[in-house]
Amino acid sequence: MPRINDHFLKLAAGYLFPEIGRRVAAFAEANPDAAKKIIKMGIGDVTEPLPEACIVAMHKAVDDQSKRESFHGYGPEQGYPWLREAIVEHDYLKRGCDISADEVFISDASKCDCANILDILGGDNIIAVTDPVYPVYVDTNVMAGNTGGADEAGRYGKLVYLPVTAENNFTPELPASKVDIIYLCYPNNPTGSVATRQTLTKWVDYAKERGSLILFDAAYEAYVTEADIPRSIYEIDGAREVAIEFRSFSKNAGFTGTRCAFTVVPKGLTGKAADGADIELHKLWQRRQSTKFNGVSYIIQRGAEAVYSQAGQQQTAGLVGFYLENARIIREALGRAGMSVFGGVNAPYVWVKTPDGQTSWQFFDTLLNDAHIVGTPGSGFGAAGEGYFRLSAFNSRENVEVAMQRIGSVLAM
Amino acid sequence: MPRINDHFLKLAAGYLFPEIGRRVAAFAEANPDAAKKIIKMGIGDVTEPLPEACIVAMHKAVDDQSKRESFHGYGPEQGYPWLREAIVEHDYLKRGCDISADEVFISDASKCDCANILDILGGDNIIAVTDPVYPVYVDTNVMAGNTGGADEAGRYGKLVYLPVTAENNFTPELPASKVDIIYLCYPNNPTGSVATRQTLTKWVDYAKERGSLILFDAAYEAYVTEADIPRSIYEIDGAREVAIEFRSFSKNAGFTGTRCAFTVVPKGLTGKAADGADIELHKLWQRRQSTKFNGVSYIIQRGAEAVYSQAGQQQTAGLVGFYLENARIIREALGRAGMSVFGGVNAPYVWVKTPDGQTSWQFFDTLLNDAHIVGTPGSGFGAAGEGYFRLSAFNSRENVEVAMQRIGSVLAM
Repeated sequence: MPRINDHFLKLAAGYLFPEIGRRVAAFAEANPDAAKKIIKMGIGDVTEPLPEACIVAMHKAVDDQSKRESFHGYGPEQGYPWLREAIVEHDYLKRGCDISADEVFISDASKCDCANILDILGGDNIIAVTDPVYPVYVDTNVMAGNTGGADEAGRYGKLVYLPVTAENNFTPELPASKVDIIYLCYPNNPTGSVATRQTLTKWVDYAKERGSLILFDAAYEAYVTEADIPRSIYEIDGAREVAIEFRSFSKNAGFTGTRCAFTVVPKGLTGKAADGADIELHKLWQRRQSTKFNGVSYIIQRGAEAVYSQAGQQQTAGLVGFYLENARIIREALGRAGMSVFGGVNAPYVWVKTPDGQTSWQFFDTLLNDAHIVGTPGSGFGAAGEGYFRLSAFNSRENVEVAMQRIGSVLAM
Repeated sequence: MPRINDHFLKLAAGYLFPEIGRRVAAFAEANPDAAKKIIKMGIGDVTEPLPEACIVAMHKAVDDQSKRESFHGYGPEQGYPWLREAIVEHDYLKRGCDISADEVFISDASKCDCANILDILGGDNIIAVTDPVYPVYVDTNVMAGNTGGADEAGRYGKLVYLPVTAENNFTPELPASKVDIIYLCYPNNPTGSVATRQTLTKWVDYAKERGSLILFDAAYEAYVTEADIPRSIYEIDGAREVAIEFRSFSKNAGFTGTRCAFTVVPKGLTGKAADGADIELHKLWQRRQSTKFNGVSYIIQRGAEAVYSQAGQQQTAGLVGFYLENARIIREALGRAGMSVFGGVNAPYVWVKTPDGQTSWQFFDTLLNDAHIVGTPGSGFGAAGEGYFRLSAFNSRENVEVAMQRIGSVLAM
């Protein structure tokens, strides 16, 4: 019988979202009428339709696939040049970042890229994550065998956890010991916090001094509203030499169900081989992608390209503005209700301190039972998320307004 | 500096298709006029537009994404139930295979699935491949550290190679020593050969006796024309207990640039953990996919679903029939020209013995220089492919006819 990858067995069984689903289902069974009123503010999925520019572009692309002369078979594994060039022009050159189109790799998901990047990295790196953190960074390292087992709080051996809490203003301290790889996500999921230029510069300098690699997840960059907050790690001098950046069309243009993302691997960024040689990560990633991936659908890449048209830029800004207004409503309503509220200014997530010393799951149950609102317990994102709770601004305006009235009533009781 | 995955450095540098590209470019530079006449019969990419049923379905799906009430955000990582149910009904139940919808995992590519399946398997399995073979099986095992280095013929240490040549009628012998994992691809890429029910039964029995796992690539199943040739490994009794099957919409419905595929992992199929426990591979794959993958675009899944409509089935059969007619023309023309010709009856690939004892690359150069035809040297698929050459039937009728006239003239010289 074939041997399995035993590292999978280290994964904690009760993953966050299945447990949420279980509790919601149990509530619904016991309270069928109340269940009809449930408003879900848990998962980070968008609710509004795609920008019209993307719709028009995809209709045209579907038609292209219907005629021999405009039919597209296998595309370049790295993505079509016209999409990579549009990305570079709008997302990088306009912001002063020195990135070229052949450093951009189109994919179907940031989640895939964040996970797959481990394929090109060795098994003996010391890896740091913030705590709380997007669970995919951690779980994929567990699967790859880069960690030990989990302790009772859910922390895996060998990983370096950098707490981000109200006490340190959600700004992690630099690791006390040397780490080889650091995951950073800004604007942050789940806390909704951002990194200032000064903070990011500190990280880039640390990485340059120690020879560390920064894996920078900028999936929420479109939500940055404050002018001096970087949207890309490459806005920081020297970042090309130390950082890979992940981007997505999911949260700006609403592509969560349409699927397109990209990753930037700058040329000249290197890792060490066993014999001490410096190996370009760009070459390894190119080889990885051309061997294990077959590119993103032509139709979807045309849709993503349209995000960069004039109409696409306006419509995308409209979508982002809509969700940010939801975030403002949530933030202000919870603040008026006396809660300690974080995030939601440069991010679609509002992160709150649970009231009265409740645990994250206790507050989850309170909101579910008394307000029929489903959110996400902070402890599900890591041990240091205990005592916090995440509410997502991805919803209809009406749902957000009703939800805030209900939560306000519950907290006033 | 982070350590890289040193196994990548074992990969032979000169990959097949880049080397073909290099030789074609050199020819074109030296012979600009002749270069205009080049007909490419090398890569297995389709040339005809998508079935009309898929076009209609995708237009509708794009429209769904334009309205709030029909908008689809994140879908199930495993794929939408309506697509998985259509697959099971048409591809499995109708052929007497006992497969259920929750055993089907929708993905964007068979290439990805063939590669990613190694994530859930251990590093100490003995792995067998046929020789010649689709290079992705080999290269992904090299990347995963499951092999030693390459010898001069390109064979990697620790892999078990099973030669398939005219001498054994392209039917590999069972491995002499025990292997844990066996890759089989039928109808075969590159040789165009098929496995009879008897041959597949022998493999399933072997796997059951030895406790081996069969990774069965059925990407070309639509090309089976002979009634008694199985289209799925699950047509063989007991295969559920030993086999994972990979399928694709690329070669039946022409989705090479549209991207959709699926993999079947039967429940009850197990691997061994370090402690000797039997672990269901279905559970591991589900965890792998939900952690490292975010599902296929809703729009594309709707296109794939339409393949199973009545119109889609007819149109798909028309496409497959068109390419099979190309294959017949190639096969017969080369036979008349005195070549030893294999495949092309149940597959879109024709596999020929090079004439006059030429090596694969010598014959490549002959065809390029004298007939301006680009094919694929058999040695690029493995050491036992030396002395063979692959021609693809994915082309326009006109190109195929012109190409056969030219090759006929060259061989008559």
